[in-house]
Amino acid sequence: MSDSDPSLCITPGLAPWRSSLARALHRNRSRPYSRYFQLATVTPDGYPANRTIVFRGWLPDTNTLTLVTDRRSGKVADLAAHPRAEACWYFTHTREQFRLAGPMVLVDSTDTALAPARQTAWEALSTNARQQFYWPHPAAPREVQSSDSPQAGHDVGETAPDTFCLGLLTPHRVDHLELRGDPQARYLYRLQTDGRWTGAPINP
Amino acid sequence: MSDSDPSLCITPGLAPWRSSLARALHRNRSRPYSRYFQLATVTPDGYPANRTIVFRGWLPDTNTLTLVTDRRSGKVADLAAHPRAEACWYFTHTREQFRLAGPMVLVDSTDTALAPARQTAWEALSTNARQQFYWPHPAAPREVQSSDSPQAGHDVGETAPDTFCLGLLTPHRVDHLELRGDPQARYLYRLQTDGRWTGAPINP
Repeated sequence: MSDSDPSLCITPGLAPWRSSLARALHRNRSRPYSRYFQLATVTPDGYPANRTIVFRGWLPDTNTLTLVTDRRSGKVADLAAHPRAEACWYFTHTREQFRLAGPMVLVDSTDTALAPARQTAWEALSTNARQQFYWPHPAAPREVQSSDSPQAGHDVGETAPDTFCLGLLTPHRVDHLELRGDPQARYLYRLQTDGRWTGAPINP
Repeated sequence: MSDSDPSLCITPGLAPWRSSLARALHRNRSRPYSRYFQLATVTPDGYPANRTIVFRGWLPDTNTLTLVTDRRSGKVADLAAHPRAEACWYFTHTREQFRLAGPMVLVDSTDTALAPARQTAWEALSTNARQQFYWPHPAAPREVQSSDSPQAGHDVGETAPDTFCLGLLTPHRVDHLELRGDPQARYLYRLQTDGRWTGAPINP
């Protein structure tokens, strides 16, 4: 969690699947939920976990997806035990799916190397989105009358609270399936150990 | 895979989360992709995997979700190694999410106890959906000129081919999040060892 190795997060050059994903984001842009994907992790007990996440853009000059999360959420414990994830991103208008798998790290308030990226992500959030990081413990029993209930508005600062984490998913394998078209099309991209990408059509 | 223990798949009575999920399916019914969810599994290597799946209805008189899959697909190897899954089902119109986690089994042609359910699922498929089970090996390199390429139509029989598997996900834990509303609402349901369900509001 602290002083994450940036080499984990950064692969040089624009990966070949980036243009397909950019096109999908553009062609589905009228639907706000096109920026949501489902993120799978493995719990400390070895079970699969899955939840919807908002895409927060790219870490500049990398192929790394950014997202934000609460340090108290289940996925933080999952990633501490198993630092990998697979995002499944389905675009409803163009009927295509991207599966993006690779190492994932979280950047919290103790991280120095990526502190500027974390601060930038905090500043990009709306006031409403920021307030969630001051809410009571996620998934704890709901105390309807609590003074720190989600109902209560909190002043949100310019500095991210300790609960705020930036998540970085760096795909090493991307599987792009296009359901439209007869036949369907599917491409598999893999990051090689020398840092280059390969890509090839595979059977759907 | 063979002669699955039906007790794994069946919990008696309608679970308390079923009415909320039925309501979501009804209120989002104008969008065909509302019947798609993302299914997370764990690979034999212990990595998370995630893909979009079509909901194929309930196993009759149970709280078990059904889906269909190709025996040659990656999720079959995942479930053989780790027979659990979490479905993440996001409804775009009503802005609510269900996370459904529990044991998952696959019913193939060698299973006798659940052979009728598998046959029923096969008969419910469209001709187009059935043809995919005669396609060449999923995720193998694409041979554009192959005679058994996805382009080629195949006669589809009334009997399911060996590639056809019925998947059964039996939730033991359901997390329902409603993003609409201020405050947001979230409920957690758990199956107890005595077969009863508990449900309670939790913090979003």
